[in-house]
Amino acid sequence: MQTIDWDDDRDCVVMVDQTRLPAEYTTDHAETVDELVGSIEVLRVRGAPALGAAGAYGVALAARTVEAEEYATYEERVRAQAARVADARPTAVNLAREVDAVLEVLDSCESVPEARERTLEAAQRVANEDIRRNRQLGEHGAALLADGATVMTHCNAGALATVDWGTALGVVYSAQEAGKDVDVVANETRPLNQGSRITTVELMQRDVDVTLIPDNAAGLCLQEGRVDAVVVGADRVVLGGGERFGDQGVVFNKVGTYKHAVVAARHDVPFVVAAPHATVDTERDADEVAIEERDPAELREVYGSQNAPADVPVYNPAFDRTPMELVDYLVTETGVYEPPLDRADFAPPVPEA
Amino acid sequence: MQTIDWDDDRDCVVMVDQTRLPAEYTTDHAETVDELVGSIEVLRVRGAPALGAAGAYGVALAARTVEAEEYATYEERVRAQAARVADARPTAVNLAREVDAVLEVLDSCESVPEARERTLEAAQRVANEDIRRNRQLGEHGAALLADGATVMTHCNAGALATVDWGTALGVVYSAQEAGKDVDVVANETRPLNQGSRITTVELMQRDVDVTLIPDNAAGLCLQEGRVDAVVVGADRVVLGGGERFGDQGVVFNKVGTYKHAVVAARHDVPFVVAAPHATVDTERDADEVAIEERDPAELREVYGSQNAPADVPVYNPAFDRTPMELVDYLVTETGVYEPPLDRADFAPPVPEA
Repeated sequence: MQTIDWDDDRDCVVMVDQTRLPAEYTTDHAETVDELVGSIEVLRVRGAPALGAAGAYGVALAARTVEAEEYATYEERVRAQAARVADARPTAVNLAREVDAVLEVLDSCESVPEARERTLEAAQRVANEDIRRNRQLGEHGAALLADGATVMTHCNAGALATVDWGTALGVVYSAQEAGKDVDVVANETRPLNQGSRITTVELMQRDVDVTLIPDNAAGLCLQEGRVDAVVVGADRVVLGGGERFGDQGVVFNKVGTYKHAVVAARHDVPFVVAAPHATVDTERDADEVAIEERDPAELREVYGSQNAPADVPVYNPAFDRTPMELVDYLVTETGVYEPPLDRADFAPPVPEA
Repeated sequence: MQTIDWDDDRDCVVMVDQTRLPAEYTTDHAETVDELVGSIEVLRVRGAPALGAAGAYGVALAARTVEAEEYATYEERVRAQAARVADARPTAVNLAREVDAVLEVLDSCESVPEARERTLEAAQRVANEDIRRNRQLGEHGAALLADGATVMTHCNAGALATVDWGTALGVVYSAQEAGKDVDVVANETRPLNQGSRITTVELMQRDVDVTLIPDNAAGLCLQEGRVDAVVVGADRVVLGGGERFGDQGVVFNKVGTYKHAVVAARHDVPFVVAAPHATVDTERDADEVAIEERDPAELREVYGSQNAPADVPVYNPAFDRTPMELVDYLVTETGVYEPPLDRADFAPPVPEA
């Protein structure tokens, strides 16, 4: 099933409950906006593209559940409910963006039934568009992998971070679909362990051989020749590095990515970034992008057990910067790009795939 | 207090109970060989030099607790008990070596009281010698650190891995003792978290400012200029690298060390290995040293919680290899050596400090 979808039988949102992974692969239904907001807040659904779809379906859910006699009153109430969905994770750009995109259809609706039908259609388009983009990206990336290749990945840039198929793992699935035998080395990805909790689960479900390693073992794996390519996603790609980070641009991705890139370069293992065009930020330089610092509790406690002194100072950045000079290929839905990148290829609007 | 010591009042072994860190800093008394073996097995005491002292004190404990009328019978029984101590951790070379060293005094003893006195003296010498060596190593290493320096370390090569003072952290303590203000960035060190559980505790106890990071953030810290030197211990140093790992030799240390070394080199941050002469193996090449693989359960479960699918394949190596070409300084109890190393400096016997 998709990471998040519309359940036609129950007329509500259904999602894989990622808080129960890896112990259980179960679904969670959100029949009200309250329930959906709760699910987003506790990270039952996570990953920027999946959150975008959650926002889109959230508007459809609001349209389904709000009641009013007058259309104007109805629309006002739907927008109020939709705003609550958009605010469920304040820093997730995709969430608010796709809420707004689906809300646009309300302007041209004239009745409650029409609004209900058309918001759901718009939400389905958002979800389907994500899958279509990821499949195209996957096919482009798969061409880089030889039959029998071992791919190392970091964090979860997979089906469960998107509506389906994924970006970095989409490359693996597309290679598999093309008849190639590809297996994966998954880094645990401390401190939130998306690699061990999520990436392993989705690879095993799709019959891709996966080996879990501690992040600390990635260097040894590269040194020992156990890896043919490193393939990761990206949270943001900037084309200007600024003085500190090289002039070819920078990839912002889950913390730990940078070390993998440096060691991969040392061993001539190709380093591949798989990310949709929408990830490329043509406006900012690397110096202008702040790196989010997360809660020290993520390190002081692990699964509720004390992992460090309760008062130890902690530096817990969510992302790091990989200079583009360490990236061999950037794969998007429109093709494979070899840095140094040509700014013209990424000028908005995002090109049609 | 020392990590492990003889309690004169209770006439038995006393050690810091490292299984209770970081929640509690408490001591554990071993009044019988059974209790000591149990404490070694459950890792109340760990780290090669500390285990050496545990072995030495174990013989003294056997000599204290064994009874026999005839000296020959007594000696036989002490040796049998000592063998149980030596076997408590089969791969810990120091443990068996120091058991044997203290057992040697039995040859020249003629009575039970004499054996009891002289084994304890010998054990105290083993412990004191470790502290003396670490202090000398620390002073040599401290000369490399400027006032105000920030040191990054990995795992726990500290007081709690030795009888006292430590090796990598001994360098920090010696710098502090010399009046330098030095602070530390401690890597968590997955999968056993010695950095978050042990290194943080001992640094805080000694009033050294410490910041805990996930291993994944080490690259960002080096890139951002937050680190002036990386200082780590070593489990084994070989002088011949073999074809695969460079011809200058290799440092075997806790897995993750290699990535730190590669990234430190990229940012021109000095990479320092602090280890006693006894760590240098002049016999073997890197190819001849096997890397221990540890239990997959260390990754599949964390503090008793499921961290990955129960049946996911795992690669969990305990150590990795850092080619000597990435090491700027090797610090021992006799001085600071800059690779490429001169084999003559490390020819057995180990030089007197």
